[in-house]
Amino acid sequence: MMRNFCFEFENTLEKTHSYALENAKDIIALGFDPEKTHILIDTDNIDTLYPLALKVGKRLNFSNVKAVFGFDNSTNVGSIFYTAIQSAPCFLPTELKGEDVPVLIPCGIDQDPHFRLTRDIAETIGYLKPALIHNKLAPSLDGTGKMSASQPKTTIFTTDTFEDVDEKIHEAMTGGRVSAAEQREKGGNPDICAIQNYRYFIFESDDERVYDIAEKCRNGDLLCGECKGLLKENIKSFLKEHQRKRSEAEERLDEYLFDR
Amino acid sequence: MMRNFCFEFENTLEKTHSYALENAKDIIALGFDPEKTHILIDTDNIDTLYPLALKVGKRLNFSNVKAVFGFDNSTNVGSIFYTAIQSAPCFLPTELKGEDVPVLIPCGIDQDPHFRLTRDIAETIGYLKPALIHNKLAPSLDGTGKMSASQPKTTIFTTDTFEDVDEKIHEAMTGGRVSAAEQREKGGNPDICAIQNYRYFIFESDDERVYDIAEKCRNGDLLCGECKGLLKENIKSFLKEHQRKRSEAEERLDEYLFDR
Repeated sequence: MMRNFCFEFENTLEKTHSYALENAKDIIALGFDPEKTHILIDTDNIDTLYPLALKVGKRLNFSNVKAVFGFDNSTNVGSIFYTAIQSAPCFLPTELKGEDVPVLIPCGIDQDPHFRLTRDIAETIGYLKPALIHNKLAPSLDGTGKMSASQPKTTIFTTDTFEDVDEKIHEAMTGGRVSAAEQREKGGNPDICAIQNYRYFIFESDDERVYDIAEKCRNGDLLCGECKGLLKENIKSFLKEHQRKRSEAEERLDEYLFDR
Repeated sequence: MMRNFCFEFENTLEKTHSYALENAKDIIALGFDPEKTHILIDTDNIDTLYPLALKVGKRLNFSNVKAVFGFDNSTNVGSIFYTAIQSAPCFLPTELKGEDVPVLIPCGIDQDPHFRLTRDIAETIGYLKPALIHNKLAPSLDGTGKMSASQPKTTIFTTDTFEDVDEKIHEAMTGGRVSAAEQREKGGNPDICAIQNYRYFIFESDDERVYDIAEKCRNGDLLCGECKGLLKENIKSFLKEHQRKRSEAEERLDEYLFDR
């Protein structure tokens, strides 16, 4: 079965538009097949998205979006309408192919409410309901929340230098003890450790190895410094390759950007 | 001073899109200069309008549109957002020229609320407030309301045949009396007469002649049949010329449709 991948970037004006292109380069560097991958930027592809958004917009009322998002009278009308735009890619493959195309939306859990509404109205406007799969949000290096562009010190970016990586990992929260002696005796706690989280989420594909490392931590056999060193190597190894591919992605943007 | 004319057609999907093109032909037939006239169709020109609509959409909240339009929880999100789209042409000339361009919006009084909101937020997003001029809505032939595509029997269309005109004017409400004899004696009432309204609004450019005819009506010197005959001639004379130009307009659409 042929699968197509469709990435949608939200409303993008001036500065955020260049962010969208930067993100697109990451997608390309990760090796998505240009034949099957379509990157949509809302403002660039609005001619394609808007007619679909209008169909959705007629079926959602303020009660619906209020109930789901907790909107009130002070919510701006752009936010109120936005679910209609976000829904459009769910129906685009069907429009383009001229027959029902099932769509799977992988999204952060925070985007789920939009697609709940989309599922509610899909069939009333003649489309299949989109299916959803939720990816967990990647954890922040301070262990308090999610990685976020607004929290650069606790987030590894795909454009970070090795020095950035060393510094951020050095500062990261761990499940370690106050002293090396105490940690050797009592062991660390990998369950609350941002380093272990990063390893688990992204930088170690071998689950056995993830569990081995956690076990060594619990036993006091692996101290935080050494453990951070292992993650640093994982990250740098990924970034080296990723940044090489990313630097070539600039010229390949046209292969991926959606053009009806 | 050079003036540019910009016409905007509302959200247009499938069938309504062809209505928009039909309306565009009327604009062309009326003799607007193609060099200075730009016809925008929301769905066709959304790539131009949407970035401006986003700026507006951030500044209007549900309270604002609720207060102006009487929206409630059952209002669909498309309607809630729509003022943002309708506002966009107010700022488009400034965007295109790269300097402040004052804009005058001639619109039906029913469209005024949108532009009230636009004026409220224009300066907060760095544009001049649009100025407004309201045209009265053309009266219906039954004297009860406005001309409307949904009331074809009481509306003269630019595509009507001469037979349509004869029939519709024949059926139109007048300010006449129950009998010719009574009307000759007591006179008619042009103030409530749809025929006189049509003459005044559209089909007689000479005000003196409009008042002369009204006076003859009041005096009982002009009966409804004859008066309707005069209007029929005005209408047919206009339609003959207009429909000739309109049939040529199809090929000239590209000169007028906005293309960034």
